[in-house]
This record gives sequence, structure tokens and C-alpha cells, in this order.
Amino acid sequence: LPFISNTVSYIREKTSSNKQDMGKLIHSVKVGLALVLVSLLYLLDPLFEQVGDNAMWAIMTVVVIFEYFAGATLGKGLNRGIGTILGGGLGCLAASFAQQVGGTGNSVIVGICVFTFGAAATYARLIPNIKKRYDYGALIFILTFNLVVVSGLRAEKVLELARERLFTIGMGFAVCIFISLLILPTWASDELHDSIASNFEQLARSLEGCMEEYFRLACDKENQPSTTSNGLTSSCKAVLNSKAKNEQLANFAKWEPWHGKFGLYYPWGKYLQLGDHLRELAASILSLKICLESPRQPSSPLRQSIKEPCEAVGSSLAWSLRELGESVMKMRKCQQGELIGPKLKAMRVELSSVVSTNSKLGNLENVEALAISSSVF
Amino acid sequence: LPFISNTVSYIREKTSSNKQDMGKLIHSVKVGLALVLVSLLYLLDPLFEQVGDNAMWAIMTVVVIFEYFAGATLGKGLNRGIGTILGGGLGCLAASFAQQVGGTGNSVIVGICVFTFGAAATYARLIPNIKKRYDYGALIFILTFNLVVVSGLRAEKVLELARERLFTIGMGFAVCIFISLLILPTWASDELHDSIASNFEQLARSLEGCMEEYFRLACDKENQPSTTSNGLTSSCKAVLNSKAKNEQLANFAKWEPWHGKFGLYYPWGKYLQLGDHLRELAASILSLKICLESPRQPSSPLRQSIKEPCEAVGSSLAWSLRELGESVMKMRKCQQGELIGPKLKAMRVELSSVVSTNSKLGNLENVEALAISSSVF
Repeated sequence: LPFISNTVSYIREKTSSNKQDMGKLIHSVKVGLALVLVSLLYLLDPLFEQVGDNAMWAIMTVVVIFEYFAGATLGKGLNRGIGTILGGGLGCLAASFAQQVGGTGNSVIVGICVFTFGAAATYARLIPNIKKRYDYGALIFILTFNLVVVSGLRAEKVLELARERLFTIGMGFAVCIFISLLILPTWASDELHDSIASNFEQLARSLEGCMEEYFRLACDKENQPSTTSNGLTSSCKAVLNSKAKNEQLANFAKWEPWHGKFGLYYPWGKYLQLGDHLRELAASILSLKICLESPRQPSSPLRQSIKEPCEAVGSSLAWSLRELGESVMKMRKCQQGELIGPKLKAMRVELSSVVSTNSKLGNLENVEALAISSSVF
Repeated sequence: LPFISNTVSYIREKTSSNKQDMGKLIHSVKVGLALVLVSLLYLLDPLFEQVGDNAMWAIMTVVVIFEYFAGATLGKGLNRGIGTILGGGLGCLAASFAQQVGGTGNSVIVGICVFTFGAAATYARLIPNIKKRYDYGALIFILTFNLVVVSGLRAEKVLELARERLFTIGMGFAVCIFISLLILPTWASDELHDSIASNFEQLARSLEGCMEEYFRLACDKENQPSTTSNGLTSSCKAVLNSKAKNEQLANFAKWEPWHGKFGLYYPWGKYLQLGDHLRELAASILSLKICLESPRQPSSPLRQSIKEPCEAVGSSLAWSLRELGESVMKMRKCQQGELIGPKLKAMRVELSSVVSTNSKLGNLENVEALAISSSVF
């Protein structure tokens, strides 16, 4: 049985890593394609006559905003657009104001503008809420404002220059969006959805593994080093450390338009809450594991005496987790929803009777954590 | 006593947040200053006559590579430099090869080069180890290669253009490094060092808070809602979720040159290991907390009977954590190092005698986790 389950998990990992490799390859080809498309502005004579050296800005836009996830590309592109327009507009105003003053005052006013707007926008970039979603926009704002306001001193036709650049940036943006969103798109939403749902499965498996490890007979232990145990700990830790990645994915997912099963205003915040509860549960399982590995745990015969009720508890906890995970994955109300609550309660009563006769409390905390986790629904 | 400790922690938080605000303000002013310095290339006639429109690249460099931490600025700058040189060099080679073919073949070869190099470098950006440290360099490589290879078709003097741009990028880089590293630098190393050391203190405080909360009399509980409890949970969770931030800081710190107490080849990896153990401990404390809040815990009179030994254990654990944290902070061998081990062992024996008479196992897991944490030294 353990051999089969190992093989199954190996194949599962293999296909998922193949899928990831495939995704990376597809992304690379898409970027190459987008680069060739914008390079046509240089390569084809009639196009180059239209845009001239400003074609550079289209290439730059593609290189900088084309990201792995469609939502990230869209977010960066919109940030770049808004930053360019705002920075360009304010830059033009400042430049024309400085020109009206004229003389040396002109340069002084430009210098002051560069300093104040640069420092203010940099400060804004450090505010957490702005940093999370508009960091790149603020960066482009500083860049464009600066370039426009200083070239206002030199170039006569600032407005025309700005218009042409904006036009080529728009072309680069259009190419990116077209290729990123319409050709085999990689959605951050799918990634977040799947990773949260698979976390349930991972936790269920580590819980079962924990039980199995604990109740294996002592002689077995010496023969077989606990490689699975390390795997279980690391999958628990992977869930524990998932916060930053989940937040980033949710951030990208918010930029993504309506597609597949995800509507507009899809409640991505709920996934983050779910992730918080899963991390709490992972913390409990991890410390349960540490606790069970303690040399102060009872000897094998005593363990065997509590084996049956404990395994019953473990498997029904794992079952509940799988049910919840599946209901998240398939986006339906948990079918066994009414069942999970009473089952867990019954289990608790049973467990407390075992505990009172055997004085082994270790599992209780899990029930607590699961109660929290299931209260989300 | 709790009032005083609350006030102390409030003041500590206040000064630390003021310090952070100050840091942000200083960073903003430094960026503004750097922008004004590179804008002088446009503002002063003699300088503008030297560099011309390429001054744009100096401004772009400053805006893009000036980051909050000195190490991040240095890392991004070096990445930009290496990416530009590599991309420019390969781009020149490819362009001159394409020119030798001539005719329509020229454009076709350029197109093929753009696609292959773009796709390959994009794939490289997705490899975790490259992504972590050289992501930005690869981006700049793609950008420069592309710009050079396509403008090879149009501009005659590609080499000169490249040389001039490289020169202005170098100027921007020099300004950034000068201002970022020499004027009130913000080191990622300091930040990582302090945050790891303060995590010890945070965990010690949550442990104490946990004990205090548990043994407070029932009547007290109703009067006083557990605001401190929430604070403790959130500080535990902050430690739990610190992985991504710590890894980023360690990454920046590796770029930073010798300064202050940190030599070259300082073992930043050890901080990450320490962080791992701290997170494990935080997981244990968090689940201990959940466990102690369970309605299935014994009633007040019974709690009072085990209060003394439990509090002794809790305070000596907190003491050990503080000692360890202080020794990390001051970078000296833990003075009480030989004391901590035996003390924890004695505590464990005492605890087990309490447990056998009272059947309350909750604390044991902590001892385990601390044993791991202290094994680092």
C-alpha cells in the first residue's frame, strides 16, 4: 500500500512539474513572438518611416511588461500607461510653466520640480498599499515626468514627441495583451485556486502520514528510515510558507478580466483568509509531528492500545479536509457540509473518552484547528 | 505590571515605526537628489553638448536601479551593467553577421536572432536560481540585445551609439552608488540581523503572554477582553510569515560590501536557517495557544494547582530565548550557553513529573521545539 501511494504521488508530482515546464516553455515562445512582432517596426521599411526611432519604446514596453501570468502583464501594462500619461501631463505643465519664467530661472524651476516630484513619488512607492499594486506605475511616473520636464528645455516639440512615444508604447502594450491574454493564457487565478485546493490535500496526507509513522511497529522503524516523514514535514512547511506567494497571485488575479469559471469581482480575499486558516492548521500538524517524535512518548505496546481510536480520528479529519478541498476545487457548496460538523463533534467526544482513560492529549489541538478551518464555510 | 509592559512595548513600537518613517523620508530625499544630479546633464549646457540625448539613459538608470536598500541598488546596478554589456556585445556580433549576409536575408536573420535569444533568456529568467539573483540582468540583456540588433539595420554607427549609451548608463550608476552607499546608507544586512534577533524577543513575549492569559483568574477574563492575546497571536504569525522577507533581505545583503560589523563572506545562510527554526518554534507556540484556548481545558482551580511549575517552565524558556536573541544581536558567543542546555533538561524532568501527576501534556512540545532551536548553537 505505501508503495502504491508513493508511486501515485510521484506520478502526480511528475505531471505537475511537466505541466509547469510546459508552461515556462510556452511563455518563452510567446515572449519571443511578441519581440519579433514589435521588431517589425524596425524591420519593415513602411512601418519604420511612420514611427522612426520611437520604435525603441515599443520594444522596451514589451520586454518590461510581458510577465508570466496574464494578470501581471495586464497590471504592469495599465500601470505603465497610467504612469506615462500622468507623468507626461504633469511634466508638460511644469515644463511650460518653467519656459514662461525663462532665463536661468527656467533651469532652477526644472531642478526644483525634479526634486520634489521625484522625492514625493518615491515616498509614495514605500507606502505598503501603493507598493502592492501601483509600484511600477509610480516608477514610470517618475521616469516620464523627469524625461519630459528636462527635455522641455531642449526639444521644441515636446508635445509631439510625447504623443509619438505614447503611441509606440500603446502599440507595444497592445501586442503584449494580445499575445498574453489570447494565446494560451496562463492565469494567476487558476494557479491560486489550484494551489489553495491542493493545500487541503497536502495537509490531509501529512496528517495521515503522521499517524502511520507513529503507529508503525518499532522493528519496522529501524529497517526503514523515515524518508516519507521528511517529505511530509516539507509539504507542511510549504503550506506554512505560502503566504507571500498567495498574496502575489491574488494581486495578479485581481487584474485579470472575466474568464472561465471566475467572474468579475470574484472574492479573491476569501482565498487569502482560507490560506491563513490552512497555515494555522499546518502549524498545528507540524507541532503535533514534533510532539509525537519526542522520546518521551509512550512505548509501542501502549501506542497499540490507543491505535484504533486515534487512527479513526485521523482518517476522519483527513476525510473532512479532502471534502473541503474538493468543494473548493470544484467550486460547489460542500455536499457533505452538514455531515462534517456533527462528525467532528462526535469524534471529539469519543476522543475525550479515550484521552481520559489514556492521558494522551496530543490530538486535541487538531480538532480545534479544524473547527476553525471548517468555520470558514 | 502589565500596564508598564504595555507602555514599554508601545514606546518600543513607536520609536521603531518613527525610525522606519525617518528611513523612508531619507530614502526619498536621496532619490530626489540623485535625480537632480543626473538632470544636470540636461540642465547645464556644457554637459549637454558632451552627451546629447543620451542623457536620457542616465536618468532612466537612476530611476530604475535606486532601491531602498544599498545592497538592492548595488545588485540591480551590477545586473544592469552586466546585462547591457553582454546584450550589447552579442547584439553587435549578430548585427554585423546579419549585415554580411545583406539583402532580405539580413532582416530574416535579425528576426530569428530576436526570437531565439529573447525566448532563451526569458526561459532562463524562470529558473528559480537565476530568478532570485539575476532576473533584472536577464531582462536588461533581452532589452539591449534587441535594441542593438534591430538598430544595426538602421544606424550606421552602432558601436559608437552603444559606447555613448554605456557611458551615460555608467554615469547614472555612479551617481546611484555614491548617494546610496555613502550618504546615510540603509543596509539590508542590518535589517536582517535586527529582525532575526528581535524575533527571539517576540517569541519569548508571546510565550509569557500565553502563560499569563492561561493562568489569569476566570473573573478577570470577563472584565478584560483579551486584546493582548490578539497582539501575541499576530506577533507569532508575523514570525511565521517572515520567510519571504528574510530571503529577500539575505539576497540583498549578499550584494553589500564589507561594512560595520559584517565582513566579506558573512554567513547569511545561517540567518535563514535560524529563521527556519524560529518559524518552527512559532508554529509550536501558536498551536499551544490554540490548544490552551480550547473549552476542554480544565477549570480554574485545577489550573491554579499546576500554575507554579508551568510558569517556572515558561519563564525559563523565555529567558533562554532572550539569552539566545541577545547573543545573536550582539554577535557574541552565548555567555549563558553552557547554562541553557542543563537548565532545559532539568526543566523537562520536572515538567514530566508534573505531567505524570496531572496529565496535562500541553507544554511538552515546546521543550522539543526549543531543543531544536538551541541545537543551532
